[in-house]
Amino acid sequence: MSQQNNSRREFMKKAALAGAAIGIGTSFLSATDKPSSPDMEFLYNLQHDAQKRKQQAELNHFKDDKYLIIPKGEGLPLTGTFIDEITWDIPSQNWGVEAWDRDFAAMKHVGIDTVVMIRGAFGRYMTFHSDVLMKHEGNYMYEPVQNLLGMFLDLADKYSMKFYCGIFDTGRYWLSGDYKKEVEINKLFIDEIWAKYGHHKSFYGWYLSQEVSRRVGGIIESFAEIGLHAKEISGNKPCLISPFIHGVKTDEVMNGDKSTTVEQHIKDWTEILSAIKNSVDIMAFQDGQVDYYELKDYLIANRELASKFNMHCWTNVESFDRDMPIRFLPIRWDKLIRKLKYSQDAGMEKAITFEFSHFMSPNSAYTQAGNLYKLYCEYYGIKV
Amino acid sequence: MSQQNNSRREFMKKAALAGAAIGIGTSFLSATDKPSSPDMEFLYNLQHDAQKRKQQAELNHFKDDKYLIIPKGEGLPLTGTFIDEITWDIPSQNWGVEAWDRDFAAMKHVGIDTVVMIRGAFGRYMTFHSDVLMKHEGNYMYEPVQNLLGMFLDLADKYSMKFYCGIFDTGRYWLSGDYKKEVEINKLFIDEIWAKYGHHKSFYGWYLSQEVSRRVGGIIESFAEIGLHAKEISGNKPCLISPFIHGVKTDEVMNGDKSTTVEQHIKDWTEILSAIKNSVDIMAFQDGQVDYYELKDYLIANRELASKFNMHCWTNVESFDRDMPIRFLPIRWDKLIRKLKYSQDAGMEKAITFEFSHFMSPNSAYTQAGNLYKLYCEYYGIKV
Amino acid sequence: MSQQNNSRREFMKKAALAGAAIGIGTSFLSATDKPSSPDMEFLYNLQHDAQKRKQQAELNHFKDDKYLIIPKGEGLPLTGTFIDEITWDIPSQNWGVEAWDRDFAAMKHVGIDTVVMIRGAFGRYMTFHSDVLMKHEGNYMYEPVQNLLGMFLDLADKYSMKFYCGIFDTGRYWLSGDYKKEVEINKLFIDEIWAKYGHHKSFYGWYLSQEVSRRVGGIIESFAEIGLHAKEISGNKPCLISPFIHGVKTDEVMNGDKSTTVEQHIKDWTEILSAIKNSVDIMAFQDGQVDYYELKDYLIANRELASKFNMHCWTNVESFDRDMPIRFLPIRWDKLIRKLKYSQDAGMEKAITFEFSHFMSPNSAYTQAGNLYKLYCEYYGIKV
Repeated sequence: MSQQNNSRREFMKKAALAGAAIGIGTSFLSATDKPSSPDMEFLYNLQHDAQKRKQQAELNHFKDDKYLIIPKGEGLPLTGTFIDEITWDIPSQNWGVEAWDRDFAAMKHVGIDTVVMIRGAFGRYMTFHSDVLMKHEGNYMYEPVQNLLGMFLDLADKYSMKFYCGIFDTGRYWLSGDYKKEVEINKLFIDEIWAKYGHHKSFYGWYLSQEVSRRVGGIIESFAEIGLHAKEISGNKPCLISPFIHGVKTDEVMNGDKSTTVEQHIKDWTEILSAIKNSVDIMAFQDGQVDYYELKDYLIANRELASKFNMHCWTNVESFDRDMPIRFLPIRWDKLIRKLKYSQDAGMEKAITFEFSHFMSPNSAYTQAGNLYKLYCEYYGIKV
Repeated sequence: MSQQNNSRREFMKKAALAGAAIGIGTSFLSATDKPSSPDMEFLYNLQHDAQKRKQQAELNHFKDDKYLIIPKGEGLPLTGTFIDEITWDIPSQNWGVEAWDRDFAAMKHVGIDTVVMIRGAFGRYMTFHSDVLMKHEGNYMYEPVQNLLGMFLDLADKYSMKFYCGIFDTGRYWLSGDYKKEVEINKLFIDEIWAKYGHHKSFYGWYLSQEVSRRVGGIIESFAEIGLHAKEISGNKPCLISPFIHGVKTDEVMNGDKSTTVEQHIKDWTEILSAIKNSVDIMAFQDGQVDYYELKDYLIANRELASKFNMHCWTNVESFDRDMPIRFLPIRWDKLIRKLKYSQDAGMEKAITFEFSHFMSPNSAYTQAGNLYKLYCEYYGIKV
Repeated sequence: MSQQNNSRREFMKKAALAGAAIGIGTSFLSATDKPSSPDMEFLYNLQHDAQKRKQQAELNHFKDDKYLIIPKGEGLPLTGTFIDEITWDIPSQNWGVEAWDRDFAAMKHVGIDTVVMIRGAFGRYMTFHSDVLMKHEGNYMYEPVQNLLGMFLDLADKYSMKFYCGIFDTGRYWLSGDYKKEVEINKLFIDEIWAKYGHHKSFYGWYLSQEVSRRVGGIIESFAEIGLHAKEISGNKPCLISPFIHGVKTDEVMNGDKSTTVEQHIKDWTEILSAIKNSVDIMAFQDGQVDYYELKDYLIANRELASKFNMHCWTNVESFDRDMPIRFLPIRWDKLIRKLKYSQDAGMEKAITFEFSHFMSPNSAYTQAGNLYKLYCEYYGIKV
């Protein structure tokens, strides 16, 4: 537990530095957040107290306990999830508001308090009718059919979630090196989002949607300028990024590129983070591109990177399986648990996942996800 | 609505030219087809009257309406579907007759009046025990286990569907340029089908199963000779083809080939259609190989091509998603609606889909399909 | 039926040679195995008597019978299945013990009496906490979360199954030619398994998990030495292998390698089997890498190979579909039946499948599997 405690100390130190204005992570709960009902107390302990988490996990018994080799209730439980609409490589579940409502309830039930909408717009697609994009990107954009952003915020309000709003990943400007256009259109887009949706009580922060594994043309400047703007117009709401590690399971490396090393990763991200530290509050690296035996080293490196730049260090625990020819179905139970344990060992502040609704939900079109949900709940003593 | 009205005028003109013998499409309903019960009237309006379709869609309210950005009931609803047995790239659902019966009922419920069996035989596989193929193709063919054709026709009879019967795609003769063998074996095969199954009241037309995007060796002669023969022996029953556009999402182009342009597409198909115009009555181009922003231009081009050669212009609205690494799961809701709207705008006569049972059905093994069904029904005010 | 009878004669001859100590296959049932209840009698006939199997299949009627072209109850029914945990290319279903219990019950219901756990350990993964591997392979191995082996043996005991225990496929030593290390670690691993789990009444034999299509570095020596050791320490329990044919559907051939021929296959495997005949009792070639029209020739070749070396000849009837872009979903019904018929025609002693739980089970996450189960049951007259 030494790393964990160490991490907690670091976190509190950072919290003091960051000031009370930014209430991020699990340690910033005010007294009023401490719930009175047994169910709420269970969730509170699950989210905030590793010791009680283990104790209460032991109290509920399941037939699977007989074959469990490791102690119950260990590892860092998932308290956040991405929402993957607009989908890029995960086929849509075609959910309407009733299905999404059911799923927010399921998230809440397992202790998720944070939802991150992966993108506000992506390529030609939008999550709401953006006048800004229709005007400035012209015929390039498609007219959207549904107001997904409005729906997600309504549900986040209803379930008292913290909502991080994804921005516009143009899929072209920044990838072709034209970061100025990426920044320019995003500033306008963010202004529009804030004006239209900023009143929602669940609107908690921003998610800078561009995904990178290291320095690519203009990404530093993009994050720096977009993040700063988003914070400025929204009363300093926190900005989250979720980069990936240039590891053996990236498409690039599987196609022949060289994978990174922990040393190179630290070098690359020291450069990037030093340039964006005032614009980004939280980093949550994706954890699926490296092999399992390498993961803990990278998690520790990330925690140290974050600490060095006074950022919060979450982890994005992927709940889909990268090792299968079907890309992608829910991850195998023991792989997920392994990663949650590494996350705790490495002192991550918070674990979020990509993503609950397809890969871990009892409502998922993939039955394997509902099965994973059941085993996950049993492991933490959550009622199924 | 001008394009739509224009298209309707063209269609009536063609209908007059084609003569009463060929009752194709949605405008050929006799007075007796006009139903009296409220449910039947609903379906009649859904299929035949864009104005009433919108009105009645507005009458039924769903929770999703709140987040719908576009007006309800727009676009051309699907009134036909392929049946994909024998499967080529879509894994079988392993349905017996009870499952298929349920699915025909679901098709009927949403307004589908036309089913197209994609192939009568394909490679070594047959949809019934064809004495002709067993004799002429010898050991090359597999003994079939089930009489799929007989089952589909029984169900089409039961549900008053118009059945288009697929022919034999040898998967070898025409692809290697030996169109004469493709024609020869198909003439015999069609004779056998007509003799064995032509008595079914639902037997409505032929589907020429060979799929091409442009002129490949002998395809013109194949369509011309096979179509003519099929019509001759069956009292001039209509022949349908469903080619594809040589666009960015074809395997060939994704592997480096150059995609076509609208101009080239018109040039290629002017040549092909002028040679097959007496053998083919309806063309229904697949709509999934081009990007969404290009689609309407191609649809308009296809309508004009069809009009020039006095053919009927349907569209094959693919209901699976070509943009995902899993090939293939159901399409995302907003993409489907977008294509239905383009289809109406471009003046398509009828929209059929590839295909209902895997990708849009409440009975599908893919739960995403049932979810799509629900959203589709809500959008058109159909009871779920 | 001549081949079948012929095969039965050969089998009895081999059985006599092999001696009573090895009770393998379906013909070694003692009088007490003959059950008295109608259900048990049904299963007994299904498993052991081709004539009665057909008769009792005809007694139960289903709506699908109307469209069935071939007679009911033919082909060799499946009486064994692999269990695919640890999964390599099939995504996990994330089943706990209750789900597995349900699935063992379903297996039993359709006449499966044999389960083969595909691997005891694989790469870095283990099916139980192996002290031997943790000690000798050091940090290379992952700590397992569940005791899968213990769970499977408990269930095999409960359902009176014959359990074949997979060994350690290191995924590295034998593939890089270092067969001595593959043998050495497996001897220790097998000793540990036997000491910990050998007392289970269902522990029936060993499955040598390394999968090859022909001679690769050290595989002969590996099979020979590991098999011999496994038999020696366990009182001569039978050893099973399940190689594959180097056919058109192997990854190697699809990537440009030349596929084998029946003649080459016989040559390769004559060499291999002559070297391992004292260490391996049963061979069950995978049947999915060759095309359907080639399969029977290979099955006959395999039967003759087995006969020559006094081995038992089972067949591993794959129940997933290798012909689809989604790799892998359940096989199409008629393909499975075709292979079961070939298996009977070629005189296979027993048909096992890879594997029931994903691809044929009513409990599978793939609904197509439950549908296949239904059609399979109807075909053999099994109550659904």
